Amino acid sequence: MRLSQLFVKTMKEAPAGEKSTNAILLQRAWFIDKLLAWVYTYLPFGLRTLRKIENIIRQWMNEIWGQEIYMPALTPASLWQQTWRWDEIDVLFKLQWMWWQDLALWSTHEEIITPLVKKYVKSYKDLPVYVYQIQTKFRNEKRAKSGILRWREFLMKDLYSFHTDVEDLDRYYDIVLNKYLEIFEKMGLEAYVVDASWWDFSDKPSHEFQVLTDAGEDWIWYDQETKTAVNEEDVESLSDLYEVIKEGDDIKEVIKKDTGKRLVRSKASEVWNIFKLYDKFSKAFDFKFVDKDGTEKYVQMWCYGIGVSRLMWVIAEKYHDEKWLKWPKSVAPYLFVIIPIGDNGKQKAEEIYRFLQEKYGDEVVIDDRDERPGFKFKDADLIGYPYQIVVSDKTLEQGEDIVELTERMTGQKGFVSYKEI
Amino acid sequence: MRLSQLFVKTMKEAPAGEKSTNAILLQRAWFIDKLLAWVYTYLPFGLRTLRKIENIIRQWMNEIWGQEIYMPALTPASLWQQTWRWDEIDVLFKLQWMWWQDLALWSTHEEIITPLVKKYVKSYKDLPVYVYQIQTKFRNEKRAKSGILRWREFLMKDLYSFHTDVEDLDRYYDIVLNKYLEIFEKMGLEAYVVDASWWDFSDKPSHEFQVLTDAGEDWIWYDQETKTAVNEEDVESLSDLYEVIKEGDDIKEVIKKDTGKRLVRSKASEVWNIFKLYDKFSKAFDFKFVDKDGTEKYVQMWCYGIGVSRLMWVIAEKYHDEKWLKWPKSVAPYLFVIIPIGDNGKQKAEEIYRFLQEKYGDEVVIDDRDERPGFKFKDADLIGYPYQIVVSDKTLEQGEDIVELTERMTGQKGFVSYKEI
Repeated sequence: MRLSQLFVKTMKEAPAGEKSTNAILLQRAWFIDKLLAWVYTYLPFGLRTLRKIENIIRQWMNEIWGQEIYMPALTPASLWQQTWRWDEIDVLFKLQWMWWQDLALWSTHEEIITPLVKKYVKSYKDLPVYVYQIQTKFRNEKRAKSGILRWREFLMKDLYSFHTDVEDLDRYYDIVLNKYLEIFEKMGLEAYVVDASWWDFSDKPSHEFQVLTDAGEDWIWYDQETKTAVNEEDVESLSDLYEVIKEGDDIKEVIKKDTGKRLVRSKASEVWNIFKLYDKFSKAFDFKFVDKDGTEKYVQMWCYGIGVSRLMWVIAEKYHDEKWLKWPKSVAPYLFVIIPIGDNGKQKAEEIYRFLQEKYGDEVVIDDRDERPGFKFKDADLIGYPYQIVVSDKTLEQGEDIVELTERMTGQKGFVSYKEI
Repeated sequence: MRLSQLFVKTMKEAPAGEKSTNAILLQRAWFIDKLLAWVYTYLPFGLRTLRKIENIIRQWMNEIWGQEIYMPALTPASLWQQTWRWDEIDVLFKLQWMWWQDLALWSTHEEIITPLVKKYVKSYKDLPVYVYQIQTKFRNEKRAKSGILRWREFLMKDLYSFHTDVEDLDRYYDIVLNKYLEIFEKMGLEAYVVDASWWDFSDKPSHEFQVLTDAGEDWIWYDQETKTAVNEEDVESLSDLYEVIKEGDDIKEVIKKDTGKRLVRSKASEVWNIFKLYDKFSKAFDFKFVDKDGTEKYVQMWCYGIGVSRLMWVIAEKYHDEKWLKWPKSVAPYLFVIIPIGDNGKQKAEEIYRFLQEKYGDEVVIDDRDERPGFKFKDADLIGYPYQIVVSDKTLEQGEDIVELTERMTGQKGFVSYKEI
């Protein structure tokens, strides 16, 4: 990638009206452009990072037998009416085809996936089924939640699983849980599962999984060792599980009763949720299968979401220093930027660019713009490439293939031969 | 891919209400599922083929310096009002955020891309700019055009180019034209450019490029050698370019005057269009640049579309025999299907499956379902994998690694060692 060909430019100042650090940095660093409140265009670098996050998730979904499909965004009112959710879900964007057919933009796909899978599943032999999609999701959100934005249009992965019974569902749930924790670790995030024992006491059908980040919208109390946590707003109602020590209205300590462990408090953001659907939708769509014993039973369902575009924001929030981004390698838009200084540097830089392209494919950027070195350094810092490679008279004095290599995440700098990168 | 894990099943009969061969075959062969008229879900095999088409297009767009971005589907009325198209475009899906902000689902992105590129382009030095996106597009279509369907939701590639002047735009146009012809050839399609000399006499801002297919919505007259064609409905008004010989109301022959060549008649489908925007949108958004001579000028724009999902349908229409699909290798969902027969066949098939996966990655399907051979053959024929590999007692009698390999496109069959595939 030659920066001289890139049509976008970095912004010196924070865009007007933005408050959160991630939104400011992502816009200043040519990742995204704001079209509307909570609606963004992905610029070339942002789209690459988004696709990398998406592909990490896709790869792991395939490993847990997920079959990828792609359901439409336009969904008919008739299906939503069958589950009484046409009026119940207040974030549906509603529209009309011609003057007579009511449609909704999808905000969740149970109404589509249930009748679809029903077409093919007749017997216990056809179960379990694991289907997922990565799709743009629309929500007519009325207000922003604090911290992380609630978007009106965003990218979401939804995995649906269909089972003969709750035991089989639980078995698969453990597999998904472990895979999810792996995914987040791969992206450099610390994810916490909101204490599983709490869910079963709850009527709430939805469970949140949280990533620690200062820009989070929730306060959680977590145990690093077991990767479990509890939402601060729920902890007092769970007195059988937690001991809560307060000073006035403020919670000062939370201790898990069974282990005696003191939990740690942090801001966190929801990046993952699970909806225990059980037979809610199979009943609504009369989706039964014939079991081993010849009886008809309702299929058991769960839905497992990941906010794909939200992850980009959460990663940006976690990985930045005072003013700049610093992407983990797995999701960086490009791994390397080459910054040439002076005429000798420029000539050598082209050689290095070709060499690294051979070795690392399209992961290499060369800053061949007609700009001052200081300008290029500032841009490179802002973008947060994992590796900066400077080639100049100063480096070439050290030897004909010598460059200065900086690892952004650690700040380590050193002179190396480019051939050893 | 193990077919025993696939949740979809082929359909024996054509779905009710479908008339076109491609729609029937794609639904019978687990590629797509119809949700609404002109709105489809992509099932696992269909999604793979769609992604292959998308990636062929993406790769070639990158080769002609296209920078990929991703613009939102939700677009504000205010931008559409600036170009007077809020009322002019009758296929806009309109909706509201809360009760006060009018939005449209994008059906074309000039209103978004023009102000976006304007932010970054100030001088002739910043031009040309080539930006593209592959996005789901929405059109509130009132009626179906004959033959190929007009979808309400479909996948489209749009490339926008921005230039200092019309000469530069024409120079890039030739590059795009040649690249497009290469893309279609790669997908096994014969594409025709509607005679370029005609465009410049026309007031129509849009130009169509046609692929020969019996399910097409237009009749064209074409010249295979020069890859140019003329729409039958336009040919009589172009008497300076074409000689038209009629019998009664019917056109019997079309001869191109400059070459004296007789053109051939065929049904065809539009898969590509170009919109000569010139300065229409740069004027609407006051998008000027400072030229070499210091004067301010309006930027010149063109838009180049390709109907990505439509291509899947056109390819399916072109590549099928009496009842079955036969995909070109470049866009087949998978290259190989292994069909085991009998116990020895089953055991050997697993060995072959592992071997071919090593060699061809995820391009291999094994039909390990608990079904009769006849059932599996019918499915394999219907799906149209480029290569069918049968392993049975009969093939193993020929030697311990021998299978029967059928190339679908040519119908050629033969016994070969699987290690030589």
